[in-house]
Amino acid sequence: MINVGIVGGTGYTGVELLRILSQHPEVNLKTITSRKEAGMSVADLFTNLRGHTTLKFTDPSNAELEKCDLVFFATPNGIAMQQTSELLNAGVKVIDLAADFRIKNVIEWEKWYGMPHASPELVAEAIYGLPEINRDQIKNARLVANPGCYPTAVQLGFLPLIETDIVDSNNLIADVKSGVSGAGRKAEVHTLFAEAADNFKAYSVPGHRHLPEIKQGLSDVAGKPIGLTFVPHLTPMIRGIHATLYAKLSQDIDLQSLYEERYANEPFVDILPAGKHPETRSVRSSNICRIAVHRPQNSDIVVVLSVTDNLVKGAAGQATQNMNLMYGLPETLGVDHAPLLP
Amino acid sequence: MINVGIVGGTGYTGVELLRILSQHPEVNLKTITSRKEAGMSVADLFTNLRGHTTLKFTDPSNAELEKCDLVFFATPNGIAMQQTSELLNAGVKVIDLAADFRIKNVIEWEKWYGMPHASPELVAEAIYGLPEINRDQIKNARLVANPGCYPTAVQLGFLPLIETDIVDSNNLIADVKSGVSGAGRKAEVHTLFAEAADNFKAYSVPGHRHLPEIKQGLSDVAGKPIGLTFVPHLTPMIRGIHATLYAKLSQDIDLQSLYEERYANEPFVDILPAGKHPETRSVRSSNICRIAVHRPQNSDIVVVLSVTDNLVKGAAGQATQNMNLMYGLPETLGVDHAPLLP
Amino acid sequence: MINVGIVGGTGYTGVELLRILSQHPEVNLKTITSRKEAGMSVADLFTNLRGHTTLKFTDPSNAELEKCDLVFFATPNGIAMQQTSELLNAGVKVIDLAADFRIKNVIEWEKWYGMPHASPELVAEAIYGLPEINRDQIKNARLVANPGCYPTAVQLGFLPLIETDIVDSNNLIADVKSGVSGAGRKAEVHTLFAEAADNFKAYSVPGHRHLPEIKQGLSDVAGKPIGLTFVPHLTPMIRGIHATLYAKLSQDIDLQSLYEERYANEPFVDILPAGKHPETRSVRSSNICRIAVHRPQNSDIVVVLSVTDNLVKGAAGQATQNMNLMYGLPETLGVDHAPLLP
Amino acid sequence: MINVGIVGGTGYTGVELLRILSQHPEVNLKTITSRKEAGMSVADLFTNLRGHTTLKFTDPSNAELEKCDLVFFATPNGIAMQQTSELLNAGVKVIDLAADFRIKNVIEWEKWYGMPHASPELVAEAIYGLPEINRDQIKNARLVANPGCYPTAVQLGFLPLIETDIVDSNNLIADVKSGVSGAGRKAEVHTLFAEAADNFKAYSVPGHRHLPEIKQGLSDVAGKPIGLTFVPHLTPMIRGIHATLYAKLSQDIDLQSLYEERYANEPFVDILPAGKHPETRSVRSSNICRIAVHRPQNSDIVVVLSVTDNLVKGAAGQATQNMNLMYGLPETLGVDHAPLLP
Repeated sequence: MINVGIVGGTGYTGVELLRILSQHPEVNLKTITSRKEAGMSVADLFTNLRGHTTLKFTDPSNAELEKCDLVFFATPNGIAMQQTSELLNAGVKVIDLAADFRIKNVIEWEKWYGMPHASPELVAEAIYGLPEINRDQIKNARLVANPGCYPTAVQLGFLPLIETDIVDSNNLIADVKSGVSGAGRKAEVHTLFAEAADNFKAYSVPGHRHLPEIKQGLSDVAGKPIGLTFVPHLTPMIRGIHATLYAKLSQDIDLQSLYEERYANEPFVDILPAGKHPETRSVRSSNICRIAVHRPQNSDIVVVLSVTDNLVKGAAGQATQNMNLMYGLPETLGVDHAPLLP
Repeated sequence: MINVGIVGGTGYTGVELLRILSQHPEVNLKTITSRKEAGMSVADLFTNLRGHTTLKFTDPSNAELEKCDLVFFATPNGIAMQQTSELLNAGVKVIDLAADFRIKNVIEWEKWYGMPHASPELVAEAIYGLPEINRDQIKNARLVANPGCYPTAVQLGFLPLIETDIVDSNNLIADVKSGVSGAGRKAEVHTLFAEAADNFKAYSVPGHRHLPEIKQGLSDVAGKPIGLTFVPHLTPMIRGIHATLYAKLSQDIDLQSLYEERYANEPFVDILPAGKHPETRSVRSSNICRIAVHRPQNSDIVVVLSVTDNLVKGAAGQATQNMNLMYGLPETLGVDHAPLLP
Repeated sequence: MINVGIVGGTGYTGVELLRILSQHPEVNLKTITSRKEAGMSVADLFTNLRGHTTLKFTDPSNAELEKCDLVFFATPNGIAMQQTSELLNAGVKVIDLAADFRIKNVIEWEKWYGMPHASPELVAEAIYGLPEINRDQIKNARLVANPGCYPTAVQLGFLPLIETDIVDSNNLIADVKSGVSGAGRKAEVHTLFAEAADNFKAYSVPGHRHLPEIKQGLSDVAGKPIGLTFVPHLTPMIRGIHATLYAKLSQDIDLQSLYEERYANEPFVDILPAGKHPETRSVRSSNICRIAVHRPQNSDIVVVLSVTDNLVKGAAGQATQNMNLMYGLPETLGVDHAPLLP
Repeated sequence: MINVGIVGGTGYTGVELLRILSQHPEVNLKTITSRKEAGMSVADLFTNLRGHTTLKFTDPSNAELEKCDLVFFATPNGIAMQQTSELLNAGVKVIDLAADFRIKNVIEWEKWYGMPHASPELVAEAIYGLPEINRDQIKNARLVANPGCYPTAVQLGFLPLIETDIVDSNNLIADVKSGVSGAGRKAEVHTLFAEAADNFKAYSVPGHRHLPEIKQGLSDVAGKPIGLTFVPHLTPMIRGIHATLYAKLSQDIDLQSLYEERYANEPFVDILPAGKHPETRSVRSSNICRIAVHRPQNSDIVVVLSVTDNLVKGAAGQATQNMNLMYGLPETLGVDHAPLLP
């Protein structure tokens, strides 16, 4: 059994992590911290967990996180980087679900996240937790930077095209739509039901924090800088990401086979039959990324459709997958349930 | 392992039953029939099940249902009553998720369902599958009539009041709200997204088929006829039932204790602390019924709030709970997952 | 032309009032105040109004409200009572869309609203702005207390029964469902999209501020205290109120005729044909209240279904209707547009 | 007053046309036909219109459409082309809201719509009813082909770029999202609430009927064939289209000024200030198309965001705008109401 601590955990990635880990056969949920909710039962805040956990939120000062084997940070950006060093020194492994260790270029990170980095020395060590790219390194990692929700769906969608260098990688386009839970469980006007329901809009077109993360990942794979236009949209659904990806083919190839072969052994990537369109609900509550690849009108533009549940493969599920890898467990343990439909 | 067959299964209770049973450790899903979809992979129709089942829909004529241990009917009303007799004779147990065996008074049934009953002789044998009332009989049943979605939420809510005879049972009121999946996966105009979204309405106020079912259940418990006004409403959500129940107290009593004690040993009924309000999402995807009991302004009107997932405790989950009871398995086996929130 | 000022106006009743008044042929929108948004264009905050108004929010200190003919308060509770006296003294008429002047019993008001009343002397003068009851008094009023959203739908639904004294008025039940815009445009967690979507719950069952308002209104009509159980519910839709009302008949009567005759001359109350069920979207964006009356199974329980748009007949539309009455304009002027469906 | 007939009118474009025309000061709604609903009151089918029209659906055989001045076809594709010739010969003008006369190349039309064209000789005469391109021709037209919903949003968004020839017009990308009302009021499974809610998917990526319409329009403007990848998506909202458009700039230019100047005199196109993002609800129920233009990260990719209400500017509102032009009325008459928000 892995003794697990969670820092934060009052947001949506937190409750999802609790839902998954409270049912994971090899996890002993030892502690969860929240300054604001200290003393409150987790199941009082998240009533879906009544009967599934007796944990209470602990004040961070009393959390004894160093007695855990593994600590997840389900905190806002900027928290994990302050506490990770001490935990690692105490022999505790860390998975950060926020963005603190995702960007290798610290100056770039500081520009996008608007604060100085508290642990630049750990950034190089951190492994970017996308198992479909970094599986072996994750197995041996002390510190995993769990990918963002958009970057997971976009990178998995583009990966076979970039690895094989068959598209114009200077002009990639990612038109991505996210459910509102992606904005987090913060009291804000623009994500109120009466604002976000029956409505659709793009946002952050001039620049979104997930842009440098995606560019870094795809550039590493390409072995050269890639060019990407990334447009996120707020969609009136709770969970789900749908990435619609566009690239110009530089050679003719059987795209369906390319995708099927690339992901043949991946337990959490499902390539749909030719001609199909994935829908976000087909992965709701699950760690699956479903992908379809099209070449409309037989032109040289390839269109990739990639869907995930932003809170699972885009956050808590992928973090659990990473934990499984770090502890030599079956990769799908505790995250292999069938999606919920309808 | 129980060899299970499913008749029907292209509707929402069908896909939910498939989702639950495909992950149940003691179930071998042997066959599923559909005249219309014969030959199609289940996972092609319900893409959430890709990777979770390789079953194909079989034409009913080739289904060899008599080789199963247990057959679930997830069919429209009027089908199970035609095939159950033959199955029982072949030693197969049957759980009907439709309404064919729910109403003991066959004339009443024929009035509400608008057809002659094909197996009136089986109606008496059938056990009404509400474990919180009929657990022992279910354990020994060959034929279980799985309750309707509204009747489950309403009966569980009223039960402690009726059993103790502390309310005016001539004037019960059940104001009940259902998600749209309760209307089934049929192509109809009034349940289109553009009709049902951002909209709320009552329907069937003059009379709904679940009225006699609820009255029968509560009258049996009361040992006398009860009077009920039942008003169902269509609510713009996918899953969930919220029953708001009203009754006039005829004596003073500690309602909170009454409910907590009545359901203390029930694995799937959760009484909330005094003063709380359950929400449907707190039981989404789970077999739990959460209940709160109020006495507003200290008047003599008791208000009970009872929520379920109409496709789980209101259909496929309760059917699985009944199967567990019929086969001596732990009652919660395979239906004990934490609800999905948000 | 009526020179109109609006105090507040950054919430949902505010934007709806602006939408209606900016198109009203007899209104000159002179000023709108907001401490927080002073200097901002109204159309920058509410982009639907681009091209329909060039107003900017003014700081309250510079608003010169006393130069208006009429001032609407679209503020939180507790603001209007501080400023109304001065405006009335300056000859300005006032319509308060908040609750400051709705409850005649000041002690009761202070109990429910949790603050001392700043102008108890004005409470007696204020006319409760439900034209279907108080039309003549509204015509001559200086100060109108615009009714709450729930009280409008509930009172219009019960009115014919109470006026004719044909039900047991000690045991009325109002089970009411509201769209999320009724909670206002405040940044709060429980009304976030990811909290309120695909979810349904009751709230404030122990006591809601609209309870005393409804009881006062119906008791006045009855000429004796009435007893009411009032249970509000949060519904995953933007706009709309659906009141389901229950009462026990004390005599036999043709309910359909009763309702049709009572409201025959009311421009904003529409009685549906017998057997019909109103839906909230049938009044979306309009000032109409649609009502159906049922007597299910011919029992002695009458069920009334009453729907409104909470932001129109439940707030800004009714305020405009009151303004029309106060200024001798046709009652429907500027609020007679066809509802938006779908 | 224009005597108007409507053929069809039981779908969403029909009810929207009825809502608009029943309040239009220069329209006399004379007749509406429906084979299926003949004899039924329009307001019984569409309860929002109670009190706004006393029209009944007439059987087409008794409709006397030739006595109208103008007939709108709000029918499925393939109907208008059978009846238009006779109407034109009788001196009646026609606006077809379906696709029968949109595509000039009849062979292309027959390929996409899967039927032989019944009036190829009228195709050449028909004016494509996008006033921002064809205003003068519309004024003199007998027969107007009202544009599709996607084509309106996409063409208005691309227009300034194509007219000025400043982008690579061989590789345009239109990633477009539509509310579910765009699929019509037909009983189908995939647009049921429980299928389409809390879900997002692309569809028809291999080819959608609006592709040739958009290509024709933009190619005409460009004076050369353009290349377009068009990906439509089904979005869980009732109304609204959001087009996200991508093109590669071939020269540097002030895009904001380009768009503002191009549309300076257009009453129904609103260019947002630089840096803004339009949302679909900002145009709900209105005939406005709001557009923002971005150049993210100062790359050479221009991103245009264009939103409309698919039932108004995408259908019934634009048809009314065309009618106004054909009859010399103010272009905005009857379609100038402020959008509904929230």
